[in-house]
Amino acid sequence: MIKAATTMTRPPIAVSDIGSFHVGGRVIRLEGLPLRQRVSTPGGPVHPVDPNGEFVAGQMYVQYVRLAAPKAAGPLLMWHGGGMTGANWEATPDGRPGWQMAFLRAGCDTYVSDAVERGRASFAPFPQVYPEEPYFRTAKELWEETFRFGPTGSWHPEPARRRPYPGLRFPLQAFDAFLASSVPRWGCNDALTQAAYNALVRRLDCGVMILSHSQGGNFGLTAALNAPERVRAVISLEPSGAPDPSRADPAILKNVPHLFVWGDNWAENEFWAHSRPACERWHDRLRQAGCDVTFIDLPRRGVRGNSHALMADDNSDDIAGLVLQWMTERGLLGK
Amino acid sequence: MIKAATTMTRPPIAVSDIGSFHVGGRVIRLEGLPLRQRVSTPGGPVHPVDPNGEFVAGQMYVQYVRLAAPKAAGPLLMWHGGGMTGANWEATPDGRPGWQMAFLRAGCDTYVSDAVERGRASFAPFPQVYPEEPYFRTAKELWEETFRFGPTGSWHPEPARRRPYPGLRFPLQAFDAFLASSVPRWGCNDALTQAAYNALVRRLDCGVMILSHSQGGNFGLTAALNAPERVRAVISLEPSGAPDPSRADPAILKNVPHLFVWGDNWAENEFWAHSRPACERWHDRLRQAGCDVTFIDLPRRGVRGNSHALMADDNSDDIAGLVLQWMTERGLLGK
Repeated sequence: MIKAATTMTRPPIAVSDIGSFHVGGRVIRLEGLPLRQRVSTPGGPVHPVDPNGEFVAGQMYVQYVRLAAPKAAGPLLMWHGGGMTGANWEATPDGRPGWQMAFLRAGCDTYVSDAVERGRASFAPFPQVYPEEPYFRTAKELWEETFRFGPTGSWHPEPARRRPYPGLRFPLQAFDAFLASSVPRWGCNDALTQAAYNALVRRLDCGVMILSHSQGGNFGLTAALNAPERVRAVISLEPSGAPDPSRADPAILKNVPHLFVWGDNWAENEFWAHSRPACERWHDRLRQAGCDVTFIDLPRRGVRGNSHALMADDNSDDIAGLVLQWMTERGLLGK
Repeated sequence: MIKAATTMTRPPIAVSDIGSFHVGGRVIRLEGLPLRQRVSTPGGPVHPVDPNGEFVAGQMYVQYVRLAAPKAAGPLLMWHGGGMTGANWEATPDGRPGWQMAFLRAGCDTYVSDAVERGRASFAPFPQVYPEEPYFRTAKELWEETFRFGPTGSWHPEPARRRPYPGLRFPLQAFDAFLASSVPRWGCNDALTQAAYNALVRRLDCGVMILSHSQGGNFGLTAALNAPERVRAVISLEPSGAPDPSRADPAILKNVPHLFVWGDNWAENEFWAHSRPACERWHDRLRQAGCDVTFIDLPRRGVRGNSHALMADDNSDDIAGLVLQWMTERGLLGK
C-alpha cells in the first residue's frame, strides 16, 4: 500500500507551483585522464569517450511545492540526514503521509533538498574531486547504530531473529523499504555541503524556517549563524553535531527561535551518547545568550520508543504536531 | 529567478497527496571486505565500520503527485534519460515550469521516478555489485553529443566561444544549471533498470501512461511489451534505443497507442544518427502490426532548432501541448 487511508478523506491542498533547481557548486575541470570506451544502451554504438573536461561539483538539489495561500512566516526548508535524501520527508517507509504533506497542510511552502553528494544533487569524480570513495552503510549499521532500532548485537539478517528495543515505534515491517531509501555517503564533504546550504538560504529572497534531521542538524544550526537575519526558526531533530560554542557567538541568534527534539534509547548507543552532548552544549549556550530555545526530550514527556527516524516512527504525525504547535506559539504559522 | 512570471497568474491545482516510495530491487549480502575507519561529522567520533552485510540493490525511486480530480486514463509515469534524474521534468534549467506541472494542470496524476543507479534511487557498491565504475559525462559530451547543442568541435570552456546550432532552442544561459542536474551513470545496469520499471507498472493497480525521454525510451517501449494490458499509452521523446523487432511481437500492442517525438540536428550527429534507426524500425513494425502509432518529426512540421532536451527547450510548453493534444484525440485525457 502506498496511500494511507487517512489521506483519502482529507481535503485537497491548493498548490500554485511545483518545481526544482540546483544551487551552489561551481564548474571544475579535470585533465590527464585516459580515454574510455562506452556503450550507453545495449545495441547502441561503442563510442570512445574523453573523461577530461568540465563538470559541476558541489551543487545541491531543491524541490519546492508552493501553496496558493501559504500561512507561514516563510518557506520551510527540509534538510535530511546523512546517507539519506529528501525522500525521507515525502512519506514514511510503510506508506503513511510524510512530514512534507503535514507541513503543506499546515500552510508551509516546502523546499525539500538533497544535499551535496546525495540523490538528485549528484556526486563528483573521486579521487579527482572527492578525496575518498563512497561508503555504503549496511543494514546492521542502520539498525544498531544510526537509527537505534535495537541495541548492539540485535541485528540479524533474518527478520524473525532481530531483537528491536521493546516498544520501538519504527514500523519494522517496512525496514527493507527504509533500507532501500538509504544512499551512499562520503566523509569529506561537510564544507561543500554547508556552502551549498548557505547558498540556498541566500538565494531565497525571504525569511526561511529550517527543519533538519541528524547530519542536517549542524548544517541548519550553522546556516542560521551565517544568516541570522534570514532565518526565522531552526528546528533540529536529533542533530548529530552542533556549532562549537568557542568559535560561534550565539548572541546573534537572539531573534531566531530554536527547537530540538530527541527520541529514546540514545544513552546506551555509543555513537549517539557521544554526539548528543554537542547538541546539549549548543542548546545551553543559546539559552545563556538569551535566545528562545526549546528542548523536547520525548521520553521525559512520557513518549517512549522513538527511534532516530522520528519522521518515520508510528507517532510521526504527533511529533509533527508538536513542531507545528511550537511554530504556532511563536507566530510562525497561521494568520 | 526560479519562478516564471506565467505561473504566478495561473490558477492553483487541487492536490490530494504528494509522496514517494522505492520499488524493485532486492536485499543482497557482501562478505570478506576489510574494516574501515570513519568520521561521520567533523568533531564526531572516529568509529570502525564493517562494510560487510546486507544492502538493497536494484531499487528505483518514485514520487507521486495525486490530484483531487484527475482527468486522465491513468497516472502519467515520467521516465528520464541517461545520466539524468526525474528533476528534468520538474522545471526547465532557466526556471520555467516543467512538464510535470504542464501534465498536472492538464489533469494527470504524475509519477516522476529516478531509475536504478540515479538520484534518489541510490547506487550499489562496485566492483562488488556493479561490475564497473561510474562514468561522469563532461560538459563537452553533453553539449556536442548527447543533447546536440552544437556540432562536433563547437564546445568551448568559455561561453562566448561556444558555437551552438543556429536557432538552437535550448536556453543556453542556463547551461551550467543543466550541467548541474546531470548525474553519473553506469553502462551495466539496463537489466536491473528494466526490472524495476516493470515492477513499478505491476505495483500500480491501474492502467498507466508512460512518458519517457532518451535512455528511458527503450525501457518504456519494453515495459509496454511486458504488460500490454496495463499500459494505456507510450510517449517516447527521442528514444536512444527500441525493442528488437526480431525478438518482440508488436501485435500485442494493438491497444496501446504510441507517440514518438524528435527534434532537430540529429542526422549529422554520430551517436544519434546511429540510434534513431532503431526507433524508426520499431515504429514501422508497430504500424505494420496495425498499432496506433504517431511519429512527430518536429523539423518536418517546420519546427526547427530543438535539441535533445525537448522538455527544456524554449518551446517546451508547445511540445507538451502536442503531446496533450495527441492524448486528448485518443480519449486518454479529459472528461
